[in-house]
Amino acid sequence: MELLKERIRKDGVVKPGNILKVDSFLNHQIDIPLLQKIGEEFKSRFSDVPVTRILTIEASGIAIACIAAQYFNVPVVFAKKSQSINLDGESYTAKIPSFTHKKVYDVILSRKYLLPEDHILIIDDFLANGCALKGLIEIVRQSGAVLEGAGIVIEKGFQSGGKEIRSMGVRVESLAIIESMSPDSLVFR
Amino acid sequence: MELLKERIRKDGVVKPGNILKVDSFLNHQIDIPLLQKIGEEFKSRFSDVPVTRILTIEASGIAIACIAAQYFNVPVVFAKKSQSINLDGESYTAKIPSFTHKKVYDVILSRKYLLPEDHILIIDDFLANGCALKGLIEIVRQSGAVLEGAGIVIEKGFQSGGKEIRSMGVRVESLAIIESMSPDSLVFR
Repeated sequence: MELLKERIRKDGVVKPGNILKVDSFLNHQIDIPLLQKIGEEFKSRFSDVPVTRILTIEASGIAIACIAAQYFNVPVVFAKKSQSINLDGESYTAKIPSFTHKKVYDVILSRKYLLPEDHILIIDDFLANGCALKGLIEIVRQSGAVLEGAGIVIEKGFQSGGKEIRSMGVRVESLAIIESMSPDSLVFR
Repeated sequence: MELLKERIRKDGVVKPGNILKVDSFLNHQIDIPLLQKIGEEFKSRFSDVPVTRILTIEASGIAIACIAAQYFNVPVVFAKKSQSINLDGESYTAKIPSFTHKKVYDVILSRKYLLPEDHILIIDDFLANGCALKGLIEIVRQSGAVLEGAGIVIEKGFQSGGKEIRSMGVRVESLAIIESMSPDSLVFR
């Protein structure tokens, strides 16, 4: 998606430790017209499959999933990163190590909002080592729903997550795949 | 907002401890067409003031703020609930005690995304004791921006937050104000 790549080139900042900061438009401040274009692109790429719910994970996935859901006409459900007293009843759970926060999260989703008859599209902002996405895939597997694929805004192609998850048979559509990056250069695949 | 009150009456569940669960449509699963109506209502109520950015707090505020922002044509910026290694440079910070999670959060917002010349609308899902909203107001005060008001989806009118914050001179527009609630009854103001 050329518009997105241009924006990453213009406003993305590469920091030591393979961190790409896109907080001016994607995950701290949010550029809504850009997210609308991203939503349209996901709809275009997944127009050949039925989608009944979009699944994402808090926090920054929520913005992308909600704007995209407008083009799919389906509800969003987001997995929560820690046990909350507001969640009762049975839940699906998975453990996700966080690269950013250097700890392991319990990720939780109420069983009420993922059903065996659902066709799920996962949407998230980043795919790097794939831990978050594997956790969401595990939750879909627990539910018995059909996983139609994963729509990712930015994939770090030099980390192993994308390759591992595609080799599991999951369809992954990443709108920008970074082949390599350093503070001085950013190369897209 | 009658549509919202009807939805709360139909799908909201009151739990012991003054908890109102609206996770089937607002803060776990998200009903996008309802959020579009909520966004239009916020735009209608705040059509008399200039708004340059919408401020919210992760996680469930993000969905509401992003859908609403489409009607204001402004970016969203969301405050983060804990120190993240992806946030660098100077930040505004405030401490917020969480009723739900029974702990105190550091709430952080990059200085780059709230400027003295901004006119800010805060949007959040709930107003109860007002701790989250007071933290966001404190962050706006630190930035020097003009606070145009706060748009709240559900206010628990029987808790003190709304009264306290209005008495600070902040304009608060709540789309549904609950006068009293119990597992058997729900009364709107």
